[in-house]
Amino acid sequence: MTPDSRTPTLDRVACPADLKRLNDAELTLLADELRHETIETVSRTGGHLGSSLGVVELTVAIHSVFTTPFDKLIWDVGHQCYPHKILTGRREQMGTLRQKGGLSGFTKRSESDYDAFGAAHSSTSISAALGFAMGRQMGMPVGDTIAVIGDGAITAGMAYEAMNHAGHLKERLFVILNDNDMSIAPPVGAMSAYLNGIAEKGPLAVLRAAAEGIEAALPGPVRDGARRARALVTGMPGGGTLFEQFGFEYIGPIDGHDMGQLLATLRAAKARASGPVLIHCVTVKGKGYAPAEGADDKYHGVAKFDVATGAQVKSKSNAPSYTQVFGDRLTAMAARDPKIVAITAAMPGGTGLDVMARRFPARVFDVGIAEQHGVTFAAGLAASGMRPFCAIYSSFLQRGYDQIVHDVALQNLPVRFAIDRAGLVGQDGATHAGAFDIGFLASLPNMTVMAAGDEAELVHMMATAAAHDQGPIAFRYPRGEGVGVEIPAEGQVLEIGKGRVVREGEALAILSFGAHLSEALLAADLLAEEGIMVTVADARFAKPLDTALIDRLIADHGALVTLEQGAVGGFGAQVLQYLAGSGGLDRGRLIRTMTLPDKFIDQASPAQMYAEAGLTAADIAATLRGLAAKLEHRPLPLARPRLI
Amino acid sequence: MTPDSRTPTLDRVACPADLKRLNDAELTLLADELRHETIETVSRTGGHLGSSLGVVELTVAIHSVFTTPFDKLIWDVGHQCYPHKILTGRREQMGTLRQKGGLSGFTKRSESDYDAFGAAHSSTSISAALGFAMGRQMGMPVGDTIAVIGDGAITAGMAYEAMNHAGHLKERLFVILNDNDMSIAPPVGAMSAYLNGIAEKGPLAVLRAAAEGIEAALPGPVRDGARRARALVTGMPGGGTLFEQFGFEYIGPIDGHDMGQLLATLRAAKARASGPVLIHCVTVKGKGYAPAEGADDKYHGVAKFDVATGAQVKSKSNAPSYTQVFGDRLTAMAARDPKIVAITAAMPGGTGLDVMARRFPARVFDVGIAEQHGVTFAAGLAASGMRPFCAIYSSFLQRGYDQIVHDVALQNLPVRFAIDRAGLVGQDGATHAGAFDIGFLASLPNMTVMAAGDEAELVHMMATAAAHDQGPIAFRYPRGEGVGVEIPAEGQVLEIGKGRVVREGEALAILSFGAHLSEALLAADLLAEEGIMVTVADARFAKPLDTALIDRLIADHGALVTLEQGAVGGFGAQVLQYLAGSGGLDRGRLIRTMTLPDKFIDQASPAQMYAEAGLTAADIAATLRGLAAKLEHRPLPLARPRLI
Repeated sequence: MTPDSRTPTLDRVACPADLKRLNDAELTLLADELRHETIETVSRTGGHLGSSLGVVELTVAIHSVFTTPFDKLIWDVGHQCYPHKILTGRREQMGTLRQKGGLSGFTKRSESDYDAFGAAHSSTSISAALGFAMGRQMGMPVGDTIAVIGDGAITAGMAYEAMNHAGHLKERLFVILNDNDMSIAPPVGAMSAYLNGIAEKGPLAVLRAAAEGIEAALPGPVRDGARRARALVTGMPGGGTLFEQFGFEYIGPIDGHDMGQLLATLRAAKARASGPVLIHCVTVKGKGYAPAEGADDKYHGVAKFDVATGAQVKSKSNAPSYTQVFGDRLTAMAARDPKIVAITAAMPGGTGLDVMARRFPARVFDVGIAEQHGVTFAAGLAASGMRPFCAIYSSFLQRGYDQIVHDVALQNLPVRFAIDRAGLVGQDGATHAGAFDIGFLASLPNMTVMAAGDEAELVHMMATAAAHDQGPIAFRYPRGEGVGVEIPAEGQVLEIGKGRVVREGEALAILSFGAHLSEALLAADLLAEEGIMVTVADARFAKPLDTALIDRLIADHGALVTLEQGAVGGFGAQVLQYLAGSGGLDRGRLIRTMTLPDKFIDQASPAQMYAEAGLTAADIAATLRGLAAKLEHRPLPLARPRLI
Repeated sequence: MTPDSRTPTLDRVACPADLKRLNDAELTLLADELRHETIETVSRTGGHLGSSLGVVELTVAIHSVFTTPFDKLIWDVGHQCYPHKILTGRREQMGTLRQKGGLSGFTKRSESDYDAFGAAHSSTSISAALGFAMGRQMGMPVGDTIAVIGDGAITAGMAYEAMNHAGHLKERLFVILNDNDMSIAPPVGAMSAYLNGIAEKGPLAVLRAAAEGIEAALPGPVRDGARRARALVTGMPGGGTLFEQFGFEYIGPIDGHDMGQLLATLRAAKARASGPVLIHCVTVKGKGYAPAEGADDKYHGVAKFDVATGAQVKSKSNAPSYTQVFGDRLTAMAARDPKIVAITAAMPGGTGLDVMARRFPARVFDVGIAEQHGVTFAAGLAASGMRPFCAIYSSFLQRGYDQIVHDVALQNLPVRFAIDRAGLVGQDGATHAGAFDIGFLASLPNMTVMAAGDEAELVHMMATAAAHDQGPIAFRYPRGEGVGVEIPAEGQVLEIGKGRVVREGEALAILSFGAHLSEALLAADLLAEEGIMVTVADARFAKPLDTALIDRLIADHGALVTLEQGAVGGFGAQVLQYLAGSGGLDRGRLIRTMTLPDKFIDQASPAQMYAEAGLTAADIAATLRGLAAKLEHRPLPLARPRLI
């Protein structure tokens, strides 16, 4: 601690055990300092600021009342964990947040014992906490379990399944509902309206608890206020909240920024709870930082910014992002085709569908954090005759996989899947990587799977998808800006299952699927300087494959490398299985499949992540160079007609 | 109609439009005859009897009040659709139920216009119905939409997501809750307890509806009863059910076998509803057939049976089923290892976990129809130090895919996945096929993927899984009986990533993954008679691959065929990608991957389905014979050491 430190109380906290030595007034001071520290830190790194500011007091109160890491604190989604990281021994590393080799932007078990369960996708915390609770019940060395879940996250079916099971098991378990009326966008649905109803009717005081249980343990004034408030909200002593109907003891709503209320409630709950308890905290996303509180997105995710003004340092973009191209173009297509509708699962801004929603609000459906429902809802729309575009990030689409198989592919319904964030995504790390969709979609009968080689190709694929009423079709494209090619005024309907040759070479060929086409071309440039001329083809389709193109590439070249922004079992696997079946491997071919490696890749810049994955242009060139060397010992293919 | 027909009313109904000409008394008669017909029919074919008997009156009432197929009737799961099939022009085909070329045991869009949305997996109906409803709202030619969902199915998160969205959209939509307190097993969880509470407190009469809305349209006596009943259940006028808190108008509970109540309620609802309505029907699974009502499983799924006695014609088994081996062995392992726990998603009997649940009830968790929660709950248990076996059918595991990626594989938590019903399953058809798990699991970092070549191998793999605390591990095995090998007293912990050579041959090799090993051996027998000696190896692992074994097979044989009970992109793909990367394909190899074909295969016997898939022993032999012919034009591999 330096004498002039602006965080004298925080400076005394090396780990949560130090909180036990602070009195309530000091804990309030600590929260203020922790908020200041969080703003300072994120201003230098960027990150998920708004959610973290909303839980500063909650973080201090939980670590003060409970004994982590023996007690298991599980943050849902985990992007609100920055104050938690600062308190749990990672203060000095906060400057490395979301950077290569640095701290993850989410909770992560391998990073700290205080991160009891990692997250990044939503709505998993109650399930995990219940697992810990039952482990304790069977003798594992686990203390209390506390899940902190947002009002957006609790709209996901998984949270409901977990509450249903917790209410059945009746094991002691704390669920803290962090109700800020915002997830990334404002939450959608009846549950959200229900929670708003409670919060509006109830004064922000401890409201409700079973009289014989937790309520009795509250300090007198808080308890009396709670009893009065309960009568106001429920109209009667016997009426209960939805959570009580699920078997939870319900306490709240309390003010999640009032340290007194938080500490009193958590202490009472800890002292008295015998079964599952839900503590309803009302918080403000971005709390305590005016620019965040005032912003539409409450500074959900920010770039580096100036603390005084809140002005974010946005990097200049050279080309529109794939997401922007998708959003703008779908809006234009919807203007001409009244059957086009769009579905997002709580990501209107992230998917670019906010553009269409402004122009056609009734034709964009935000289903909430509910990918399972979203996919089958889209299937129902398709069955009714509409042309639904279901826009879900690759990694979140995993949540709707069974629905894709059972409701869409099996019934051959023309749902259009717009799969953003395909491939490695950068700072959000491994949890958000779009690594598996090629494989899990291309193995499905009836499915058509495309990937955009650049932003112009995305436009063509959107037109192709809109025209494809015969069955389901998916197109994937990466996070971030395009390569800067001219975007055509009109998308062209592509022939299903036909790729294209982009550059004519000799002896060696790359068959690229998706946005790594630019790296393939760079690799070809590198090799051209060495006199090695490489054919570069863009497969466009992983299913159905352009088998004629593959046959030609094989016939005319001595070596073929497939390339994709996805895991083993995807595009390259499809090509190899086709070739095995057709006898294309019988006579010996130099074939390599370049994919993501068999490991999860931690956060870094996308370029750094692809370097770690071995998928840079240099890596591709090296692979081809190695094949060229092998070819010198082989007869070259015969002279052949030009491909383009 | 014959003069002495026992079904004179039913004989007058060729399609649902004919119901419009029947009065209420005749509709009641029709229901009785339909029940009789359903029992008769299923006694000859086997099938899902109990659920169908529970909805006979409901089926008649819905088709009478609504105008299908313009109005969209969507049966959740769809296994209760036999009376619906009989009424919708498929009466004559009912003898072909669940047989090759016959009627599906579920609803199926390609089978009838009256099957508005196919099903077989649970809890999709509200999402699909809402999709249709929004399609109608945007001008599609759709009438009313009616989802019929069971109290088991409504525990799934997907149903909650759909209700949350429906309550938000406020579009007219009918959800009929078919509450029989049974799905396949009795439902689990707080929701089930909640529904029981309503049903027990409420007289079986129309209970509750908004006074200005549907209730006012009810006939006088029903309406008065409803008002009295409402006061009894909720204690006050303002109190509401959970469904009302979600924005639904709630009517019920009504007696789902009382045609008068059903017709009055549906007519009133149809006349007055402006938004989403939930009609709570209490029914009895197996209703009207004493042997079914009296059975524990309510004749959920039956073999052919004698109508008079209810005695089912069970086929004799030659060997214990894989499921039995799993259930018995896990119980024995749990007796020795207190850390072993098991998780099922509403399938204690189907997975064989009922055996362990009888002996260790506190260590078997039935989470309800909640695969998402089940997987992450298992991850939480693993994180606490337990050894969870998560037993979920292959096709249902698709529901937990994101949780496998994000909560299990990414955190490298040692959850053991016991994947029953891998491969083609017979009468339940394409929806229940376990086709995709090899691919969607083997592409995940940290995951170990095994498949049992026979029931003895299953026992070894269970021991291997129990011993594998290093990370997640899965083992798959098929529906039905084993091959009859001796089951070892003790499972042997297998070396991770090591396969085995089962039969030594020459020139040709089969590398089998999983239970098609028996077909591989049969194929080898067929070829041995022709003088072609085939090496048969059992890969055991799809991940990590036994690359040494693959290299040896490739080095010592002129041709290699991989074999699996799964789709393209699975085991064969992993082998090919390994070989491509290692240079194993460079010099030319006759390699074929035999997988399920790129189509969904309709119900039939498993043998018929595998014949359609091209995966019989004869098919395998034919493939090898073709390769042997090619080999005659090639130099054979050199003399080599024996493999076993």
